[in-house]
Amino acid sequence: MTVKPAIGIDIGGTTFLVAAVDTDGRMVASQEHETRAADDPQIVLRRIIAAVREVLTEVGWNASDIAGIGMGIPGLHDRERGVVLTSPNLKWHNVPVAAEIGQALSTTVKMDGDVRVAAIGERYFGAAGGCDNFIFITLGTGIGSGIFIDGKLYRGPAGYAGEVGHQTIVENGPQCGCGNYGCVEALAGNGGIVRRALQALAGQSAPILLQEVAGDTAKITPAVLHQAALQGCELSRQVLEDTGRYVGTAMANLVNVLNPEKIIVGGGVARAGEMILGPLRDTVKQRAMGPGAAMVEVISAVLGPRAGVIGAAAMAMYDLD
Amino acid sequence: MTVKPAIGIDIGGTTFLVAAVDTDGRMVASQEHETRAADDPQIVLRRIIAAVREVLTEVGWNASDIAGIGMGIPGLHDRERGVVLTSPNLKWHNVPVAAEIGQALSTTVKMDGDVRVAAIGERYFGAAGGCDNFIFITLGTGIGSGIFIDGKLYRGPAGYAGEVGHQTIVENGPQCGCGNYGCVEALAGNGGIVRRALQALAGQSAPILLQEVAGDTAKITPAVLHQAALQGCELSRQVLEDTGRYVGTAMANLVNVLNPEKIIVGGGVARAGEMILGPLRDTVKQRAMGPGAAMVEVISAVLGPRAGVIGAAAMAMYDLD
Repeated sequence: MTVKPAIGIDIGGTTFLVAAVDTDGRMVASQEHETRAADDPQIVLRRIIAAVREVLTEVGWNASDIAGIGMGIPGLHDRERGVVLTSPNLKWHNVPVAAEIGQALSTTVKMDGDVRVAAIGERYFGAAGGCDNFIFITLGTGIGSGIFIDGKLYRGPAGYAGEVGHQTIVENGPQCGCGNYGCVEALAGNGGIVRRALQALAGQSAPILLQEVAGDTAKITPAVLHQAALQGCELSRQVLEDTGRYVGTAMANLVNVLNPEKIIVGGGVARAGEMILGPLRDTVKQRAMGPGAAMVEVISAVLGPRAGVIGAAAMAMYDLD
Repeated sequence: MTVKPAIGIDIGGTTFLVAAVDTDGRMVASQEHETRAADDPQIVLRRIIAAVREVLTEVGWNASDIAGIGMGIPGLHDRERGVVLTSPNLKWHNVPVAAEIGQALSTTVKMDGDVRVAAIGERYFGAAGGCDNFIFITLGTGIGSGIFIDGKLYRGPAGYAGEVGHQTIVENGPQCGCGNYGCVEALAGNGGIVRRALQALAGQSAPILLQEVAGDTAKITPAVLHQAALQGCELSRQVLEDTGRYVGTAMANLVNVLNPEKIIVGGGVARAGEMILGPLRDTVKQRAMGPGAAMVEVISAVLGPRAGVIGAAAMAMYDLD
């Protein structure tokens, strides 16, 4: 069967991105608008539908030219019925997204979580390069994943799989947003990174970092730490390297359990590049068992913030279930 | 297609077990002999072939009556070629088991790791009850697993998957046999359990436990701790409960990553029953995220030491690849 182009939609709490994506994974037209999540979901959906119509008009495609629409939406979904069950970021509950958008635009709509569609993007048009067994992780506020097993996105029997950020790696570590203690996300998510930086500042001077935030430690973020580290701040470098080590420990666990061929690292925090990826890779190689550790590649994602919208479109192009 | 009965073979470092297994998973005839792993593998294989012949004669089956032979063998395998690549327990290297046994007995031979065939046994004729997504773990010298995903045993692209005992759960914990630090196996495998008991004894009196081993702490094993705990030894009870908690922490990680429907606990240490299973289950429910934790059942394996030989036979009966 010939693959057709598709429309990808990536909805975040702040903005949503709509793109016409061709069969080579190129965004040939796109629009980004504010989500304004405080609005009624129906109103947000109407804005999205309008944006899709404009994008379709821009590229001159009609419903029969496209494979369909794929959507990445943070939260829990009933994928069969096309309903967002709950999305804390959007404050949506039981919103029948697929029916609303599909009827308005006379096409089929598929949906999945934001990180999962990004994994699909990296699989078809990014760093995975067609690899059938890999783990895509995003490092940001949370640590999420999309796990590919035998060429399929693995969701688990009830759809709850892939919460790789909620692996306990420090038995009595800091409490995580999920309620557990010592999750890798509590240590290496944005909040954990900043907490560790503040703890380190209590016992160590870091003039470059403090200059970067004009003395206001409330302004410390992973991006600020990266900037300070590039300018020679030892404390900042250490905090980011430890971040890589924590994530590497969690990934070593998954190498032993799942034997992936690649671990692909994306998300905002991953912009620190080798400063995090280096220790992450070293830790995987040190902690995971010989043969699985030797074969796994730990690499950067390549699609960046476009992974979601491109992956959403790829989900519409290909049968992934 | 009609399912046929099969021969199961479970080879351990000390003994091997051969059984004729009917399509209801019943062992209708069996033999157990010493493996004598120090012997040349050819000699061990000849003993196995002789035992299979005797078992077949006893039940009156010939090669056309059976689906084939399934074998569980500890170590790394080339399953396509039917070769044991390396088995530290047996001291075997590059032994073409399937060819030798298949030719001698004019039937097909399938093989896999000892814990994986036990998982297959529990799937078809044991605690899994036909469940398609579960994790079977064995607690003993090592902590191993067989992971079922969508009704198939998951081996990973190169066959290294399922090493659930080698998840770091205590970042700077004791060193594990695999070289890593803080693996759940280093804390809750036989060696880790005994080490924790000896550490506890340094600071706490445990007259019941010491009486159980006639004052010789070198005789402490998980079974001895279980006996002492049943007689009221608080230290022993605590060591076993902590074992359940460590294993539960590692299993909570897997609930978050894989969303299994069941976790089935077998192996020698699991004979301590609820003393370990209780805290294991509680820890999974506490540490894993809500919906996945709510749906997963943590239960005992039911086939005991026969799981391997029955599962090996089931592997011959059913197409699992």
